[in-house]
Amino acid sequence: MAEQEKEAALPSKASFSEWYNDILHKGEIMDVRYPVKGLYVWYPFGFNLRRNVYDLIRELLDKDHQETLFPLLIPENEFMKEAEHIKGFEDEVYWVTHGGMSPLDVKLALRPTSETAIYPMYKLWVRSHADLPLKLYQIVNTFRYETKHTRPLIRLREITSFKEAHTVHATWEDAAVQVDEAIRLYTEFYRKLAIPVLPSKRPDWDKFPGADYTIATDALMPDGKTLQVGTAHHLGDNFAKTFDIQYENPEGEQVYVHQTCYGISERSVAALISIHGDDKGLVIPPEVAPVQVVIIPIIFKEAADVLQACESVKGKLEAAGIRVKLDASDNRPGAKYYKWELKGVPVRLEIGPRDLKNNAAMMVRRDTGEKQQISLDNIRDEVLSMFSVIQDNLYEKAKQGLDQRIMECISLADIKENLSKGISKVFWCGDKDCGLRLEDEVGAGILGIPSPQESCRGKCVVCETDTDTKVYVARTY
Amino acid sequence: MAEQEKEAALPSKASFSEWYNDILHKGEIMDVRYPVKGLYVWYPFGFNLRRNVYDLIRELLDKDHQETLFPLLIPENEFMKEAEHIKGFEDEVYWVTHGGMSPLDVKLALRPTSETAIYPMYKLWVRSHADLPLKLYQIVNTFRYETKHTRPLIRLREITSFKEAHTVHATWEDAAVQVDEAIRLYTEFYRKLAIPVLPSKRPDWDKFPGADYTIATDALMPDGKTLQVGTAHHLGDNFAKTFDIQYENPEGEQVYVHQTCYGISERSVAALISIHGDDKGLVIPPEVAPVQVVIIPIIFKEAADVLQACESVKGKLEAAGIRVKLDASDNRPGAKYYKWELKGVPVRLEIGPRDLKNNAAMMVRRDTGEKQQISLDNIRDEVLSMFSVIQDNLYEKAKQGLDQRIMECISLADIKENLSKGISKVFWCGDKDCGLRLEDEVGAGILGIPSPQESCRGKCVVCETDTDTKVYVARTY
Repeated sequence: MAEQEKEAALPSKASFSEWYNDILHKGEIMDVRYPVKGLYVWYPFGFNLRRNVYDLIRELLDKDHQETLFPLLIPENEFMKEAEHIKGFEDEVYWVTHGGMSPLDVKLALRPTSETAIYPMYKLWVRSHADLPLKLYQIVNTFRYETKHTRPLIRLREITSFKEAHTVHATWEDAAVQVDEAIRLYTEFYRKLAIPVLPSKRPDWDKFPGADYTIATDALMPDGKTLQVGTAHHLGDNFAKTFDIQYENPEGEQVYVHQTCYGISERSVAALISIHGDDKGLVIPPEVAPVQVVIIPIIFKEAADVLQACESVKGKLEAAGIRVKLDASDNRPGAKYYKWELKGVPVRLEIGPRDLKNNAAMMVRRDTGEKQQISLDNIRDEVLSMFSVIQDNLYEKAKQGLDQRIMECISLADIKENLSKGISKVFWCGDKDCGLRLEDEVGAGILGIPSPQESCRGKCVVCETDTDTKVYVARTY
Repeated sequence: MAEQEKEAALPSKASFSEWYNDILHKGEIMDVRYPVKGLYVWYPFGFNLRRNVYDLIRELLDKDHQETLFPLLIPENEFMKEAEHIKGFEDEVYWVTHGGMSPLDVKLALRPTSETAIYPMYKLWVRSHADLPLKLYQIVNTFRYETKHTRPLIRLREITSFKEAHTVHATWEDAAVQVDEAIRLYTEFYRKLAIPVLPSKRPDWDKFPGADYTIATDALMPDGKTLQVGTAHHLGDNFAKTFDIQYENPEGEQVYVHQTCYGISERSVAALISIHGDDKGLVIPPEVAPVQVVIIPIIFKEAADVLQACESVKGKLEAAGIRVKLDASDNRPGAKYYKWELKGVPVRLEIGPRDLKNNAAMMVRRDTGEKQQISLDNIRDEVLSMFSVIQDNLYEKAKQGLDQRIMECISLADIKENLSKGISKVFWCGDKDCGLRLEDEVGAGILGIPSPQESCRGKCVVCETDTDTKVYVARTY
């Protein structure tokens, strides 16, 4: 897809918002020109990245979950059953009202999330304690009629890649353990994307509609705002009562189940792009890079030998399961470097006549730009070990960036001052009025109480009551 | 998911329609109890099969296509642009008219297929001859407001698994070659599902709305009806003109592109289940079976040795990438055989104390029921070679079944008589009136002209004009 406008330089990442919009296009992640607000198109390169990211989620979940697929359309009567849940979503639901030219008897909601599609079936599927725990997930498109400013991968009207898990347990305690397990899985998943995340228990007014409580994971974006990149909800027996999901316990009694649900969306891709990218473009962790290695032949006269050596290296790496691109196009090497740096390829190998004489290649890291000569004989091992070095470096760098931008604050003025830098950590008494006043006065949100909770003691930043609870406060996406 | 009704026996496959409905439930493929007509739920086992089937499609297409993802919602104005296309779909489209409580400014169609979502973007993406050919595909949910009788996997209101490819070419001829290539790919894909398909060029009145022509592949179902399981459409420059998709040719002129699209849906899974299954349940080809081998320990007293041997066999097979289940549950062996035969597992291994003494296992084929003793030493190779024997046998059996049920007919009475058995092959002059009269008189449809066309000469079965064209006629799903 040759597009002339690609020639213009990328804005500096210091102007994060412009950089983000531009990298999505120039890096061929998403095309924003689809003719409906809030709906975007995955470029093939972006979708390839998405595939790799979601393959990781599947791999993690498949260990003890099963994948399934429920319908998109939810009939109004089912959707309206859970009062709190519908209150949380009623302004955001797309409604299908017509089939062909005829009005439908029952309006159909496009799922904003699938509790009300799945739980009527769980009522049929769960009979006895032997059926529990039940752990299913699906990866689907979901819909929100967003009235706020939309943004690709972050705030969408069609979330194209919602991974939602729904589990059923015998007891409230079992479900609570599963919520922690979900957060552990998500932390592991984000570790593979080299992204450190902060889990916290959301305040009550910010929990999932219909849940007992919500634990969410946030990532810190370059502009100091946090992005919620995963949530896990303890549903108690609230939905079980609404949808009449009971099981027979070993004593022969019918009891309500306890449930959880937890989700991740393409915000995972947004975080990956935003946190690792730099002024030259994307920087993609080797685990998920669509192209992990690009080979650039440096050709003067004796092209044949060099190309042959490049092909041979390509074959060796591919045999080890590495995703390799040999760029033998007519462009100058400099233009090729520029292109593949923009695309975030973790490792570049340059092979020219002089390298060949030394039976070597020049290996260049995308994350630091460092070069080193490596022998062609053990190129596979050199590349694989470089992947793990890059993967660790990206994580450590992101972790440092996060740690440095979590500030302990002891006053509302403190918080305000720190808002543009990152996350504030403050004592809070737990009272809702104090919480809302805090949010209002600093113009930012309470993310929640760090999970697991830290042991500490101090005075609420609003009312100065003694408390053993700290919360994260930040501007959020 | 323990369900009591599973105990009832499966109806004989001779009553195909009842058998089909029952196997979907008992085999845990689809649950039909979702509270909206024409929408169904994939059981985890069924979805596992679906994953394997679609992984095959991806593998075939990824060789020279790229995967991508476009929005579900198509604005009314784009959807209405191509006159013939909209005529073909207007009675079947679901319309979103409301977001939250508010009516939308522009109605949004749920894609019945994605031409009108994708081609406005192709207009932006295609600039020069160097961009061509462009070959993209996506695997998505699509929607049809079916007023006819719906049926799981076959006639749906939400097609959950539509693989649609959309290609762009410089010339009409290049696009024609791609249509043939699509049919070749589909034939290869169905070969891996052990399903023989018949490609034929659809008559003009049955082509895709907006296409120059359509070639489709049909599978023959046990009840003698054909199921359309893949279609490839030559779109000419029809959509290019509507959506203004042009490229600059080497002479510097702006010319319209030529396009194709081709699709496969979960009907592929319906065909697989229907064609291979038997009175005992599913028979799944090893290529796509969620469980390829089940190991049943035959335990009397000395359980430990046997279980240890079973675990060891399981480990060996898994190391070779084989999907294995060891059923060490408390059920009797007979009950286990019944269960895993119902689930269509291609190979069963029984290991008891006597087998152990002989360093052997009993291997039982699901497709024929044949048993043979094999040595534990080369169990991996025995199993792998049995997979390929089963795969070939399933295909040959299905191919024979198909060949035997294609009848050459020389009169309308002939056709009528053969309808319940399968497909009739008759001479047809190519005239639309003759075609429609034929369809009307025999109460069946013209599938199309075999592709590639056979060399032959005879008299039209309706008007007795000389013709060199034969067509397939059949009752269709």
